[in-house]
Amino acid sequence: MNTSVRDKLLASIRTIPDYPKPGVQFRDITTLLGDADAFATAVDGLVGPFADLGIDKIAGIEARGFILGGAVAHRLSAGFVPIRKKGKLPHETVRVAYSLEYGLDEMEMHRDGVKPGEKVIVIDDLIATGGTAEAAVKLLRQIGADIVAACFVIDLPDLGGRRKLEALGVSVRTLIAFEGD
Amino acid sequence: MNTSVRDKLLASIRTIPDYPKPGVQFRDITTLLGDADAFATAVDGLVGPFADLGIDKIAGIEARGFILGGAVAHRLSAGFVPIRKKGKLPHETVRVAYSLEYGLDEMEMHRDGVKPGEKVIVIDDLIATGGTAEAAVKLLRQIGADIVAACFVIDLPDLGGRRKLEALGVSVRTLIAFEGD
Repeated sequence: MNTSVRDKLLASIRTIPDYPKPGVQFRDITTLLGDADAFATAVDGLVGPFADLGIDKIAGIEARGFILGGAVAHRLSAGFVPIRKKGKLPHETVRVAYSLEYGLDEMEMHRDGVKPGEKVIVIDDLIATGGTAEAAVKLLRQIGADIVAACFVIDLPDLGGRRKLEALGVSVRTLIAFEGD
Repeated sequence: MNTSVRDKLLASIRTIPDYPKPGVQFRDITTLLGDADAFATAVDGLVGPFADLGIDKIAGIEARGFILGGAVAHRLSAGFVPIRKKGKLPHETVRVAYSLEYGLDEMEMHRDGVKPGEKVIVIDDLIATGGTAEAAVKLLRQIGADIVAACFVIDLPDLGGRRKLEALGVSVRTLIAFEGD
């Protein structure tokens, strides 16, 4: 990513102090999505190295990953597979637990959402601790997907999510980072 | 829509009997989304008449409307604004109640998500009773949007949603219909 692209994306993100709780700086991506130019720039940035690799499916993580993932799937002429919180998919699923701040929750996807060997990119808006992204990787590997990369507009590097995915052997692409979050 | 397009979309949708409860035929669009060709066909079909109208924003209804809406926004080089269940947006919102089978719930969007006069298309995967789509229309009008159309891949005409929106003066576009649902 060159500097002007990074600056454009940074300028399009709204920071909301003390949300959802005191001391947290919430990075609000809705202002990026609402800016047609910034949205297109983010989609192009996410897919940059993958445009000619014959990607079969985009796995989008509920809910903001659906917006970016739908756009990326369209950009790459790929299919889209949703990774959802449990209980929302109507057909047979695979399921994996992940850690929340307090306790556990589960993510799931349709067992036939990806065929073994298909090339998949995982998309979400932001990587923080990496809990849901790690769950997505585990689900996709359980059904034999070839995970080409996991891509996020925003990295919060201090929270370690990127390192967590890389330790699983996943290639991670992010466009901008907020340190100290 | 010509017949071959309609047939392709119909063939890509999975029907799940008795989900989420006995007697309901659930129309599962995840198989359409996962089929790159069907997904692209649906996006092209949704935007067909609107490609040259200078659409400013796509309003996608949570959650499946995010996937299609993200793709449509990319296709039209428009911005995207999410319409969400209450309590999920971090900035100042407008909010409207809508009827569920039992009781009420609320949808909301950011007050600055659309500027007055901007041309907006509402996107969701399916229109049934039209409760959430009607809520989306009310929210958008409250902040002065120019609603060019509301577009859905699937219409369940027996449930009356389309007529409900048309009675509000909204132009409705759907690609396929399941009668008797």
